[in-house]
Amino acid sequence: MLKIPPHQVAGHQAGNGKLGPLVDESGRFYKPLQGDERGSNELKFYTSFSSNSRILEHISKFFPTFYGTQLIEASDGSGLKPHLVLEDLSVGRVNPSIVDIKIGSRTWAPEASEEYIQKCLKKDRETSSLPLGFRLSGIQIYGNRESGYWKPERTSMQNLPAEEVKLILKKFVSSNTSTDMDLQPDCAFAATVYGGSTGILSQLLEMKAWFEDQTMYHFYSCSILIMFEKGLALEGQNPGGQIKLIDFAHVIEGRGVIDHNFLGGLCSLIKFISEILTDPNEHKSLVSSVNGIN
Amino acid sequence: MLKIPPHQVAGHQAGNGKLGPLVDESGRFYKPLQGDERGSNELKFYTSFSSNSRILEHISKFFPTFYGTQLIEASDGSGLKPHLVLEDLSVGRVNPSIVDIKIGSRTWAPEASEEYIQKCLKKDRETSSLPLGFRLSGIQIYGNRESGYWKPERTSMQNLPAEEVKLILKKFVSSNTSTDMDLQPDCAFAATVYGGSTGILSQLLEMKAWFEDQTMYHFYSCSILIMFEKGLALEGQNPGGQIKLIDFAHVIEGRGVIDHNFLGGLCSLIKFISEILTDPNEHKSLVSSVNGIN
Repeated sequence: MLKIPPHQVAGHQAGNGKLGPLVDESGRFYKPLQGDERGSNELKFYTSFSSNSRILEHISKFFPTFYGTQLIEASDGSGLKPHLVLEDLSVGRVNPSIVDIKIGSRTWAPEASEEYIQKCLKKDRETSSLPLGFRLSGIQIYGNRESGYWKPERTSMQNLPAEEVKLILKKFVSSNTSTDMDLQPDCAFAATVYGGSTGILSQLLEMKAWFEDQTMYHFYSCSILIMFEKGLALEGQNPGGQIKLIDFAHVIEGRGVIDHNFLGGLCSLIKFISEILTDPNEHKSLVSSVNGIN
Repeated sequence: MLKIPPHQVAGHQAGNGKLGPLVDESGRFYKPLQGDERGSNELKFYTSFSSNSRILEHISKFFPTFYGTQLIEASDGSGLKPHLVLEDLSVGRVNPSIVDIKIGSRTWAPEASEEYIQKCLKKDRETSSLPLGFRLSGIQIYGNRESGYWKPERTSMQNLPAEEVKLILKKFVSSNTSTDMDLQPDCAFAATVYGGSTGILSQLLEMKAWFEDQTMYHFYSCSILIMFEKGLALEGQNPGGQIKLIDFAHVIEGRGVIDHNFLGGLCSLIKFISEILTDPNEHKSLVSSVNGIN
């Protein structure tokens, strides 16, 4: 029995007769293959990556498992359509807090079409991609049983200045419920989610080490998902913080060069998370604390 | 007595009635203050940086010492003009090999004028800046007493593919003279120039660690100079490999965010140098050795 994924925070979404991904009860995620070259490119990437013997487990764990393609009934009622069959990343999660972060100050590959480049460049300049090296594409933060999720409009997340992005990344690991998100975040779970030897920061650093070295793929317009279970954190258990890379419709060959665009954005995100860990209660604005040029 | 710098490989150059930098015999380098905001911006940067107590010596050593400004006779005969007074980086060098590498896949700041952005974007796309994250802006490689320097056209260096850039960075540390630059580079001095605890790679990694952390300045359109003395290397002495950052007309405030654009390009350059050190005699093309997407 296929259904609409309950925890999707960004990307095309099924429902109301629209085309979007579906999940089943066995833990598989069915992503419609986009009809244009985005679909064939994403399939090409998954096929290459999943059979690449140079990708070791400590890196492949950051990617959804790929199970091939399958014809299934599309969510928009248009009949049988080819779908990528992937691991459902939300399996085993009860009330996941999730943020989708599109990495890179540039979301377009040099060889993309002029029309596509201009469209992406415009969006990169209008959002925080250009100044920050990444943009928040979507988020849901679990509050508690009563208040449920805080899930702001996706478009409202994309062009925030540095201090606002930092505030959101603090809220993400705070005990504030969804009804008191306007209060100062307490960063109650920063240490257990972002910190520690298996926490988010450690995982991001492991990913960074790979990006400093690998010259096989350039990941334009990919996202890092950060997920954890606030319910477990509230009970004092390991909150299961995890990062995953998703969305590979614009991956190209690296041709012997590292993905400096992704790496730069990743390092910027790492700096934000590090600062929250180092100084979770720093409340003054970032800007005023910087001894800048003037 | 002011004269034209003998070892400039990029940027505006004096001579033939043109405006360009001059040097004196006391080790100072006089750079004409550009009349527009580039001049005032570069002066603002040097003033801020040289008085910034958060810049420690292990970082400030990568920058030319700043001695203020001075009115001197401009090289184009236009009379007294304000000049930045800087350290002459070639002091003490006899026959320096020098490469000027403009760092970053993007040479424009988000807040630059639309006209300037379009001009830079065009050049970034036409050169290796976009694919590689840096471009070679100029080079001179000392051969020996007879053959002198190999100093190719600057424009011929800027849009080379990865494998050609790697070849140039190999030639840079090879014993080939300027008349046999077409031969396969022997990388005879790779270990002593690029390698070792005080070599170029170590210095680049020290600079990288700073860029992963500092959120004070964003260095658009800056160059890293890499210099050493082949004459000393030929005699088995320490070749004095050194990196310096130059050209700060487009530095802006960091506003609490790391310079992910510079950092990405720097990491890309580091990867090139690392590969040459790891495998100096790898002769096959980079492209064919990559198990890419296809």
